[in-house]
Amino acid sequence: MEDPLEAYRDRFVGADTDLVYFDGNSLGRPLKVTADRLRDFVVEEWGGRLIRGWDERWFDLPLTLGDEIGRVCLGAGPGQVVVADSTTVLLYKLMRAAVAARPGRTEIVIDRDNFPTDRYVADGVARECGLTLRWVEVDRSAGLTAELVADAVSERTALVVASHVAYRSAWLADMPAITRVAHDAGALVLWDECHSAGSVPVRLDEAGVDLAVGCTYKYLNGGPGSPAWVYVAERHLDSMTQPIQGWMGNVDPFLMGPTYTPTAGIRRFISGTPAVVGMLAVADMVALVDEVGIDAVRAKSVGLTEHAIALADEQLAEHGVTVASPRSAEQRGGHVTLHHPDMARVVAALWERDVIPDYRDPGGLRVGLSPLSTSYDEVDRGIAAVRELLA
Amino acid sequence: MEDPLEAYRDRFVGADTDLVYFDGNSLGRPLKVTADRLRDFVVEEWGGRLIRGWDERWFDLPLTLGDEIGRVCLGAGPGQVVVADSTTVLLYKLMRAAVAARPGRTEIVIDRDNFPTDRYVADGVARECGLTLRWVEVDRSAGLTAELVADAVSERTALVVASHVAYRSAWLADMPAITRVAHDAGALVLWDECHSAGSVPVRLDEAGVDLAVGCTYKYLNGGPGSPAWVYVAERHLDSMTQPIQGWMGNVDPFLMGPTYTPTAGIRRFISGTPAVVGMLAVADMVALVDEVGIDAVRAKSVGLTEHAIALADEQLAEHGVTVASPRSAEQRGGHVTLHHPDMARVVAALWERDVIPDYRDPGGLRVGLSPLSTSYDEVDRGIAAVRELLA
Repeated sequence: MEDPLEAYRDRFVGADTDLVYFDGNSLGRPLKVTADRLRDFVVEEWGGRLIRGWDERWFDLPLTLGDEIGRVCLGAGPGQVVVADSTTVLLYKLMRAAVAARPGRTEIVIDRDNFPTDRYVADGVARECGLTLRWVEVDRSAGLTAELVADAVSERTALVVASHVAYRSAWLADMPAITRVAHDAGALVLWDECHSAGSVPVRLDEAGVDLAVGCTYKYLNGGPGSPAWVYVAERHLDSMTQPIQGWMGNVDPFLMGPTYTPTAGIRRFISGTPAVVGMLAVADMVALVDEVGIDAVRAKSVGLTEHAIALADEQLAEHGVTVASPRSAEQRGGHVTLHHPDMARVVAALWERDVIPDYRDPGGLRVGLSPLSTSYDEVDRGIAAVRELLA
Repeated sequence: MEDPLEAYRDRFVGADTDLVYFDGNSLGRPLKVTADRLRDFVVEEWGGRLIRGWDERWFDLPLTLGDEIGRVCLGAGPGQVVVADSTTVLLYKLMRAAVAARPGRTEIVIDRDNFPTDRYVADGVARECGLTLRWVEVDRSAGLTAELVADAVSERTALVVASHVAYRSAWLADMPAITRVAHDAGALVLWDECHSAGSVPVRLDEAGVDLAVGCTYKYLNGGPGSPAWVYVAERHLDSMTQPIQGWMGNVDPFLMGPTYTPTAGIRRFISGTPAVVGMLAVADMVALVDEVGIDAVRAKSVGLTEHAIALADEQLAEHGVTVASPRSAEQRGGHVTLHHPDMARVVAALWERDVIPDYRDPGGLRVGLSPLSTSYDEVDRGIAAVRELLA
């Protein structure tokens, strides 16, 4: 396969090994530049500047990196994205903020196939705030649609919570349409972009999204447990507050005054001391996505998933494997899920052979295709290994 | 001054420069071994093991590192400490858990000199849970005492929140006595150990503490924004839950089932994906404190603070400087605060000369003395610089 982005693969650690890595959608490979970046940071910036680093760069890093993620990956204008906490903690803050912003409304709409943490947080927030979860049942072959959301929302809906790319099937939701449906009911909408940021172009401002959140360790290659990011549309920034009132979100963190007053802008969604070391790798990857361009990244992503689907049809269908992801690229994110009743055992055997996808119940092998670090040859070898195991 | 621990100073980045660093109590210096640790982690563990790293080591790292921090620094038996989030987020989780565990009680007791984030979180939790804050007024020359707490607690008290070492004055609270007073009133107690962990020996189990929290970037040298730790006494682990229900605290994170059920043990206080990279430097420093022994670390800490106070008396008192920290070592943590009406300007001028303390209103210069990375000679040069500026 022709691959105009092939050369970028050399920028990643371990891309020259025989490993077939199909799990960049769970944990992206590190960039080579990141290894030295972290060592140099310890010696020069942390060790050399010490506490002065806060004034010089670190204090604003969650905002400056947030702006970069917003510009390069999210279609978000400046001042609306900040890096902080984990996806789970940010989901909690956003859901609490949204519920408080829609007083009197009694329901949160969420689909049963949404990522567990989204559902667990929604369940907890609903319980503590006296709301009810209204579950949307999703047909896994079609995913969450605007029609399903339209059937669920009403004048009772405070918030709709949805994933842009479904973690199991890679179904790519119609963000503008679902956002519109939520707004038509007077509800707010919160998008989980964990499986899209850095892989699928996102247009938060254009779609009129209220709130969004995403991690940075998948397609933004921030490393295990790197901090998450949160987006709050500018129109909400004055009025929305979150419940974890920490010094870093106060109007002047170093004033250390008697009472908490949320600072202006997106910084109010920060609580404690930002995870500076955890942001360094993210910044490296966002710079690379910027260099390549998110549309070119998406084009390769589509190429890789189409190739994987074609190979699955050619080589695996006869062994009982079905493609559980959408066949239309417009409805598909960056991974492809292959179903087989025996897939749990197949995945375990693949790991033994240095072919590393992940497994999601029931019977799903996820072929995660991180566009800049995955080669077409890797897809060939990986699918061939699945075929050999099933044969 | 004789210093049996002098040789350990060479283990830290930048200890061989002329910089006088009096802010290890805000951000500790990195260990030299940490620089290579982070680079090697990127290349070998993250880059080499990729997603497999979760099963192999990272998933348990918050617990294994928590146990080590507990054993080496906190006097806490295994299974009660976990590394997660930030101090602020963990304070929120703990206060919410404590309030839920004392239904019908209507007050949180906290002193006005407690660190801002502790007060801000308490204010937010009290408001959202319908409780009242009962403020303890502290005499800054004496700090928070068991008597003051005894006057404040009652059958209305759900929780007492206190700092073991006061961030301004370094007042070392009597943890066992205050814990007893809280318990006598039927209340729970939450200790903030940010300014003690790694410097002052802490005996959480022995003192019968219920809950504790601390950061890792001060005396545990974890780097800017490294994750925090939380302690929940074993007797509370079955019954206490926290409100941020994430997949990593679920009974089986990878089952991805329909509902959240908190897992057994301290892991239920985790919400999202743990910050693995942020824990590596902490592990290095905890290993060093273990090698030296926390009592030897404390002995040097006492030596350094006594030296700083003696020099302040000899050289600075005549210029109007007063010692705002307790003169008795038993009542003093790891730093010494010096007061002068002009201290804000003095601190700014010191920074120009590569003498780096920090400043806390009103008029306080904090001489932070990280025991293993600070030399007596550094104290001599730093105090001499203050004298020159005031003369």
